[in-house]
Amino acid sequence: MTYELYYWPGIQGRGEFVRLVLEEAGAEYVDFAKHKDGSEVAVRELMRVLHDTATPSPPLMPPVLKAGSLLIAQTANILMYLGAHHALAPADEAGRLWTHQLQLTIADWVVEIHDAHHPLGGAFYYEDQKPEAARRAALLRDQRLPKFMGYFETVLGRNRSPSGLLVGNSLTYPDLSLFQVLAGLRYAFPRAMARLEPDYPGLVRLYAEVSARPRIAAYLASDRRLPFNEHGLFRHYPELDP
Amino acid sequence: MTYELYYWPGIQGRGEFVRLVLEEAGAEYVDFAKHKDGSEVAVRELMRVLHDTATPSPPLMPPVLKAGSLLIAQTANILMYLGAHHALAPADEAGRLWTHQLQLTIADWVVEIHDAHHPLGGAFYYEDQKPEAARRAALLRDQRLPKFMGYFETVLGRNRSPSGLLVGNSLTYPDLSLFQVLAGLRYAFPRAMARLEPDYPGLVRLYAEVSARPRIAAYLASDRRLPFNEHGLFRHYPELDP
Repeated sequence: MTYELYYWPGIQGRGEFVRLVLEEAGAEYVDFAKHKDGSEVAVRELMRVLHDTATPSPPLMPPVLKAGSLLIAQTANILMYLGAHHALAPADEAGRLWTHQLQLTIADWVVEIHDAHHPLGGAFYYEDQKPEAARRAALLRDQRLPKFMGYFETVLGRNRSPSGLLVGNSLTYPDLSLFQVLAGLRYAFPRAMARLEPDYPGLVRLYAEVSARPRIAAYLASDRRLPFNEHGLFRHYPELDP
Repeated sequence: MTYELYYWPGIQGRGEFVRLVLEEAGAEYVDFAKHKDGSEVAVRELMRVLHDTATPSPPLMPPVLKAGSLLIAQTANILMYLGAHHALAPADEAGRLWTHQLQLTIADWVVEIHDAHHPLGGAFYYEDQKPEAARRAALLRDQRLPKFMGYFETVLGRNRSPSGLLVGNSLTYPDLSLFQVLAGLRYAFPRAMARLEPDYPGLVRLYAEVSARPRIAAYLASDRRLPFNEHGLFRHYPELDP
């Protein structure tokens, strides 16, 4: 089966969490966000899926994955599906729930990272909420990054396997998402991360291990990996990273 | 099996989404947030679970459900578990994914509702972010509530069953959560909701149907149902609902 991924063109965004799983799985997929006919067609294809009045399960927001007759939205939900079908999650109930719990905690973290540059919501530009963003970003740097990073460091330490991964012996989908969050934070907050990272050696190791996996390394080196930019979740505004 | 629920005392918060499922399921549970020895003990019990160094699957934030040997966190994850065990979700993969997708979309909505009174994050009091909250609440009232309400109205309309519910013929866990969001919005934004609701008759009907279910009606009439207040997710600040 060839999957179809629908997302906004030009940014990694939440689509990137899905792409990393598809790449690690070696899955066949068509990425409609990178449509050969350009961004306008990519957006039109996305709108076609979001507004298809024939589907009984309409998505509200992208990313959306078409998997045969299934149309799946919500990043963590898509990853749960792919994890189950590509051996990137445990098969037993306890393991599946724990893996998904970690993914949902990463999703909470991502919302907080996004809100650091958009505390008043997505309807206003960053330029229209700079003082508010400065206050919220300080909170993110000083309190929330240590909280989440400390939590995932604890999780890595509790794993009875010496894999260096979040769950058991082998890679699961939240490992890929945690790599992506760390990559995004290094881009957006290089100074804060340089200060913080020495306290979280497990996270640094996980980042290195994930990025060295053959399929992930090949993906990151390819032109399929879009660069980070100031339109996505992880934005580098130097004034937010003093 | 008797479940154990751990959450902050004194508020409905995200714990309420779990309580509604437990009540509808007729499940036995001990609600440690309402500990007979008071709030201090409730918080101590919650901290005991969050900081238990013996657990291989530590939760970052409440609510937390103890189900036999399982310790489950993240509201949507707890509901997925309970839905599967108490016939409050479809058994087939497509149905499970669709149900969970709806729950995760409700979770996104809840974050936006919370952020209307706390756009700068939870570390500052509402009183320290009132102008920012006014801007964000206007966005919520004018754009985001119609977007989410319109979406769920569409979902209800697409259901091929005439059940008036979100998924198929019978109640699923996102029906209970959607009821709770509507209840919270009626409390927090009574004026905005009075203006909006006539456009969403399916939501109004779902609210009425869920609240009339015998177990839910009994729960809502009991002292187990905490009142809404200005410490939870849904807060009534008249200046945010002009």
